[in-house]
Amino acid sequence: MKNFVFQNPTRLVFGRGQIAKLASLIPSDARLMITFGGGSVKKNGVYEQVVEALKGREWEEFWGIEPNPSIETLKKAIAIGKEKKIDFLLAVGGGSTIDGTKLIAAGIKYDGDAWELVKRGAYKDTVPLATVLTLPATGSEMNSGAVISRYETREKYAFYSRYPVFSILDPEVTYSLPEHQVACGLADTFVHVMEQYMTTTSQSRVMDRWAEGLLSTVMEIAPLIKQDKCNYDLMADFMLSATMGLNGYVAMGVTEDWATHMIGHELTALHRITHGETLAIVFPGMLRVLREQKKGKILQYAHRVLGINEGSENEVIDEAIRRTEDFFRSLGLTTRLSENNIGEDTICEIERRFTERGAAYGEAGNVDGKLAAKILRSCM
Amino acid sequence: MKNFVFQNPTRLVFGRGQIAKLASLIPSDARLMITFGGGSVKKNGVYEQVVEALKGREWEEFWGIEPNPSIETLKKAIAIGKEKKIDFLLAVGGGSTIDGTKLIAAGIKYDGDAWELVKRGAYKDTVPLATVLTLPATGSEMNSGAVISRYETREKYAFYSRYPVFSILDPEVTYSLPEHQVACGLADTFVHVMEQYMTTTSQSRVMDRWAEGLLSTVMEIAPLIKQDKCNYDLMADFMLSATMGLNGYVAMGVTEDWATHMIGHELTALHRITHGETLAIVFPGMLRVLREQKKGKILQYAHRVLGINEGSENEVIDEAIRRTEDFFRSLGLTTRLSENNIGEDTICEIERRFTERGAAYGEAGNVDGKLAAKILRSCM
Repeated sequence: MKNFVFQNPTRLVFGRGQIAKLASLIPSDARLMITFGGGSVKKNGVYEQVVEALKGREWEEFWGIEPNPSIETLKKAIAIGKEKKIDFLLAVGGGSTIDGTKLIAAGIKYDGDAWELVKRGAYKDTVPLATVLTLPATGSEMNSGAVISRYETREKYAFYSRYPVFSILDPEVTYSLPEHQVACGLADTFVHVMEQYMTTTSQSRVMDRWAEGLLSTVMEIAPLIKQDKCNYDLMADFMLSATMGLNGYVAMGVTEDWATHMIGHELTALHRITHGETLAIVFPGMLRVLREQKKGKILQYAHRVLGINEGSENEVIDEAIRRTEDFFRSLGLTTRLSENNIGEDTICEIERRFTERGAAYGEAGNVDGKLAAKILRSCM
Repeated sequence: MKNFVFQNPTRLVFGRGQIAKLASLIPSDARLMITFGGGSVKKNGVYEQVVEALKGREWEEFWGIEPNPSIETLKKAIAIGKEKKIDFLLAVGGGSTIDGTKLIAAGIKYDGDAWELVKRGAYKDTVPLATVLTLPATGSEMNSGAVISRYETREKYAFYSRYPVFSILDPEVTYSLPEHQVACGLADTFVHVMEQYMTTTSQSRVMDRWAEGLLSTVMEIAPLIKQDKCNYDLMADFMLSATMGLNGYVAMGVTEDWATHMIGHELTALHRITHGETLAIVFPGMLRVLREQKKGKILQYAHRVLGINEGSENEVIDEAIRRTEDFFRSLGLTTRLSENNIGEDTICEIERRFTERGAAYGEAGNVDGKLAAKILRSCM
């Protein structure tokens, strides 16, 4: 096991009816701004619950944080936040709303251009923020990370600030999610765990088993949710898996990968493909191209998660990769670039970008522009 | 899944050489008291490492917090802490030292008799405390609980205060532990997880799998540690399992039991038997007596953790209980009261105490004096 320092102070408030606790969780004298995405919370009753919970309080509202939140939009919120001297932020929405709000929380306290913070990669001096999660997927409700886009230049980068003070997770608010968003959330959760697991063997028995527990759970609940997405226990399992999948709990003392995400972010930046969809395309390609390097862990995954116990090592690996791609397809996601009309031009542009920034991703630091292109070509 | 609120703010600082970070982790102007157990840290080099790390600082030392820390001893530390206006506590030791220091941290801030705090069960206004863990077992390094004894009246109760600010876990400091302490630590870890798992089925797929991951890990590493207790990776797995086994990470949204612990505490209070040993005796008895009530979960445990896949339900349950008791015996622990010269007198006294306090422990709230006596009789 590698040395590590770990701390995650976010308070999880999980379950039915928990949005009603908002007033007791937000300081009564807070100068509050509530941030939202495109407005689905007005249709599914979440907005109403928030307003009801905060009756008697005053707050600013900022609407319109888009999927893959853009610096362009967030700067508007930062300007309002500064003007109104906002000192507490509540993000009500999915990962994009929460991610965007993390940058707003930092931007309010920063004198310069907020894009500088994104390029810097981290900024810890922020206004406190909390969340009401509506879409299980990114884990942003219990981690310090965010991913911010700049549409003008088609760039997308990770940014780290502070953990949410609290996050309210009520599985009932997920009942109204479109099937495609549920599919992307399941894929996102699955690949988050994989990025922390599918590296080298024998680093930590506990972390391996906890990651496998999340992978098994996601694979088990996915077809059941398809049949019954208003099942409380299923959506609770989904919501908890998504949060636990990227809050550091399965990353203690182990090497991580994240190359799939880095390539996926480029596909989103260039083509606006939903994050979860990019992962469903890239991750099987990562396994195909790095099957030798990741052999030990693929075999462990095949055995423990997929229950493949027969065949030669090569056959088991083939079968594990095939079943992983099948899993994404079973969610209704595409797994090939050609299905999205993406071809050699994009591959060359991503190779160029990776090479330009001296990319060296993955647990072995060997996913550079050339290898990224090879992985993408295996996904045609 | 049940509604839950979860937060665990402790910073884990894990790995080789991490004690050297102490100076950067403790505020430089802290009026520090360092608390210790019986002195083993002077033999295994831990005391030296702490002194070296804090060179140039001043601190008080309090020595002699005993296994099953007593209110009698802790009151002395509280008096010194008040007198010296201590405002930061560092516990260097195992679970008993840490548990005791949690009461000291509360007692320093409390005007009355510290035993009142124990009887009250919780007190959150404390001096901040941190730990350097030397014995993986209780999980106290990453939770808010403590168990405090009063020798005079042979009482032992749980007490809740605040989480440690940070805990340093260096697996190398465990190499010098006596085999019996390692055995008790493994048993303690195993039963902690069981108390959060061996209740009812189908509450949370993630929590079930994470608990099973810890149980499997403990059962896998126990015989390996016996052969090679200076193996870094094995002791790191043990240390991480013990901490993760009682920090709330496997208890989210599920019912818990703790009846084994409540009965075990009485055996310790009455006979000074090491905590881990009491659990090895009581837990198999709990399964024997409550096999019908816990049937679904015993079958799941048999299948997923023990790999028992053949036989009738009754045969599988018999085999699972037998193997659980065998596991404790393989650690070198006794599993029967008669082996400890404990008989009907003690059973009657525990029944009397449970009845007197209206005990209703376990996930079904049915472990009262009478049922506790039945469980203990099955452990003769």
